[in-house]
Amino acid sequence: MRTTTENAQLALLLEVSGTPKPGNVDRHREYDDLRFEHFVTGAVCARDGLRLAAGGAEVGESFRRAVAGMSQQSGGNTQFGALLVVTPLARASAAHELTPEGTRNIVAETTIEDAEKFYKAFEYVDVAVDDPPEGMEPLDVRRGADAVPTIRERAITLEDLMERSADRDGVAAEWVDGFPRTFGAAETILNGTGPVTDRAAIAYLDLLADEPDTFVVTKHDAKTAEEVRRRAAAVRDGEENVEAFADELVERGINPGTTADIVAGALFVALERGLEV
Amino acid sequence: MRTTTENAQLALLLEVSGTPKPGNVDRHREYDDLRFEHFVTGAVCARDGLRLAAGGAEVGESFRRAVAGMSQQSGGNTQFGALLVVTPLARASAAHELTPEGTRNIVAETTIEDAEKFYKAFEYVDVAVDDPPEGMEPLDVRRGADAVPTIRERAITLEDLMERSADRDGVAAEWVDGFPRTFGAAETILNGTGPVTDRAAIAYLDLLADEPDTFVVTKHDAKTAEEVRRRAAAVRDGEENVEAFADELVERGINPGTTADIVAGALFVALERGLEV
Repeated sequence: MRTTTENAQLALLLEVSGTPKPGNVDRHREYDDLRFEHFVTGAVCARDGLRLAAGGAEVGESFRRAVAGMSQQSGGNTQFGALLVVTPLARASAAHELTPEGTRNIVAETTIEDAEKFYKAFEYVDVAVDDPPEGMEPLDVRRGADAVPTIRERAITLEDLMERSADRDGVAAEWVDGFPRTFGAAETILNGTGPVTDRAAIAYLDLLADEPDTFVVTKHDAKTAEEVRRRAAAVRDGEENVEAFADELVERGINPGTTADIVAGALFVALERGLEV
Repeated sequence: MRTTTENAQLALLLEVSGTPKPGNVDRHREYDDLRFEHFVTGAVCARDGLRLAAGGAEVGESFRRAVAGMSQQSGGNTQFGALLVVTPLARASAAHELTPEGTRNIVAETTIEDAEKFYKAFEYVDVAVDDPPEGMEPLDVRRGADAVPTIRERAITLEDLMERSADRDGVAAEWVDGFPRTFGAAETILNGTGPVTDRAAIAYLDLLADEPDTFVVTKHDAKTAEEVRRRAAAVRDGEENVEAFADELVERGINPGTTADIVAGALFVALERGLEV
């Protein structure tokens, strides 16, 4: 029997091993400065943080520790978002509540200290984010630990932060809503047949076809994200070739990272629910 | 800074990620029933055993624990040999002696109990081995724990076992001789440039071209192993196409596993000596 910690780490590794996952690094496609080996190393070094969450530690500190580990490679940000999905799920599993309701409880229990740790996690790697809305500059995540006084002053919890970002960040939206897309994709993977990495690739394409990827919106714009969504749907419907689509997205530097993050979470849920590898 | 445990696990993952590695599972080639995902899972679940060795525990128990973990996937034997290379190296690293001389000390210190644990490790997975020589039937490794009374009666250490196998098993030969090919390949990797997984593939081809793979001898015969060696040399010299050679070996089911095991050990040494990923 694999442990929750092992399943959390394995989820990160199976996510990046699934191919084709148009636009993202996978077994067959990588960027010159962001390679498969960076993701593998990120997953290896994130484990001690994941173990904290799987042992029932606070989500904020577990996440900070996982990101600090993940950053021990030269590719930059490999799994910040994936860890932000998997960490609360691992914590929910520790509480024997790996369900939408269980994750809502974990999120509701987050504190100001969790929010502080979340900000500290941004100090380890450069994460692509939008400028904050008017009046929110003191809470710009890029300020890292410098934002801590404001967090304390305003008594902001990690749940509060996620609620403020849910309309423009697909991972935050999962946090505040019981991880609906994550649990849905887990079912897709569990109900599939064949190699797990192929099922992960199918789940990825489904998610990509269903909603615009918020990371693409942030890094490019809403129009690009909608184009990617529409074409992923065309691939799913057999109207476009997946390999050519994948090549084109890498060529254009469009990587739907949020969708990949959700697939990592879905793989974790599926593994915890008995997915055989 | 990555820990020794992390580097040991990372070595297994980078080994299987290197491509092309003619005949073995890698990022681009797999067998229907032995896939990339099985190696990834094996590496995830071997970690607790590797951590024992990296913490200075006995080699036999660390190895047994690592193999028990590695077997938590449905592909069968993925990394038995790689773990047999990496475990004593991790133990040598724990003793701050990751050198040929240091590994000789670790091997010389092995006990009867280490030999017992080694036999127990064979109970977790089917490992392809030759029939034992005349008179050695009670020590056939396929007997697993049933061989323990004989081991005790004859007071055989793990070093003794390796010495008896060194002439026909490339991993055992490394054990008794200070891991010369492992440390040599580590230098190849450290002195190389570009992606680490490419360097691992180059080191693999070099080793394959230099000596017949003993796993191929066991599973097929000496003639096949020599053919593979000769053609690997031709690939290295630019006289044969590496991708076609890789496809052909997978087609014929010829996987030079011992050579891959040594590459895993070489990656571990290189990582411990500061290889950047």
